Amino acid sequence: MVETRRQQIETIASSLFREQGYAGTSVRDIARGLDIQGASLYAHVASKEDVLWAIVRRAAERFEAEIEMAERATAGAAPVERLEAYVRGHVGVLTENVGQASVFIREWRSLSPDRRARIGARRDAYENRWRQLIAEGSQAGAFAPTDPPLAAAYLLTALNGIVTWYRPDGPLSARAIAAEFVNLSLRSLGAEERP
Amino acid sequence: MVETRRQQIETIASSLFREQGYAGTSVRDIARGLDIQGASLYAHVASKEDVLWAIVRRAAERFEAEIEMAERATAGAAPVERLEAYVRGHVGVLTENVGQASVFIREWRSLSPDRRARIGARRDAYENRWRQLIAEGSQAGAFAPTDPPLAAAYLLTALNGIVTWYRPDGPLSARAIAAEFVNLSLRSLGAEERP
Repeated sequence: MVETRRQQIETIASSLFREQGYAGTSVRDIARGLDIQGASLYAHVASKEDVLWAIVRRAAERFEAEIEMAERATAGAAPVERLEAYVRGHVGVLTENVGQASVFIREWRSLSPDRRARIGARRDAYENRWRQLIAEGSQAGAFAPTDPPLAAAYLLTALNGIVTWYRPDGPLSARAIAAEFVNLSLRSLGAEERP
Repeated sequence: MVETRRQQIETIASSLFREQGYAGTSVRDIARGLDIQGASLYAHVASKEDVLWAIVRRAAERFEAEIEMAERATAGAAPVERLEAYVRGHVGVLTENVGQASVFIREWRSLSPDRRARIGARRDAYENRWRQLIAEGSQAGAFAPTDPPLAAAYLLTALNGIVTWYRPDGPLSARAIAAEFVNLSLRSLGAEERP
């Protein structure tokens, strides 16, 4: 696949932001990663924050699309199956483009207030779907009694930790990680593992 | 309790590093928080990194002391009880001084390479104790079969997420959070909750 210059910028920037942090990365670092002059980079992006904004928005769209797919694929199914689809979808987004996902998770607070508020609202809406499913499953007796906001925070944080250590060329495949994290997540909620 | 100037510096710096990140905080910000001149601050600390180093070391000592206590308090006990003591101890350190714990968890990578390596080794040793306990419990049939490194990463990350939202004056007490996180953690490993 041929990447456009914009995509190259986002890929290089994701990897730099992941390794050295947003605050610790300059536009010059990004330009150097692309082997161009800082001035040339400004032909493509208005500011470093615009690059962060593009990465974060793209990641938000992927999480949202994935949970929509999980919902559609398990409409009417039992809470355990629906939660499994949520976890697989979430872990899939994390591992498919771990640089982008890492920046979304760890650097969204570096956005300027207006953009931070917009992403914060989307993050809340996403987390609310998890709380809702946990509440439903808990009420239906499919999960152990729990505090849905705490349980959702516990699960999502545990999953998001994957971005701190996952490497596509590491010893564990994305598939193996997803399988283990599905088990841990279902058990966290006291759900029976599926046979 | 009367805080020494050093303690005041660490307290203010923890809170600033937590709110705006280490890279986004200047020595001048810390001085302003203490209502003194930047130059006066240098009478107490050699650099911003020295403040980070002091905070991170102090947090590392607290985690290590707490797991030692948990070990001693549950020596010879069943894996489920030992894990419960680990989780309670860890959550206790997180909530007792959430600013310090947050900086330890989120900013230790901002240390210079030598210090980062030293803290990294202590973090690894700490995490290894969790892996070890999970492996023992899993072998003894007290926990479900699992991959100890993945399960330890899952648990510790889930617990550490507390620093992103916990407020001492928030609606949930540290005690209530610990109780719920003990349940979630024990269940994650397929351990029976204690009656």
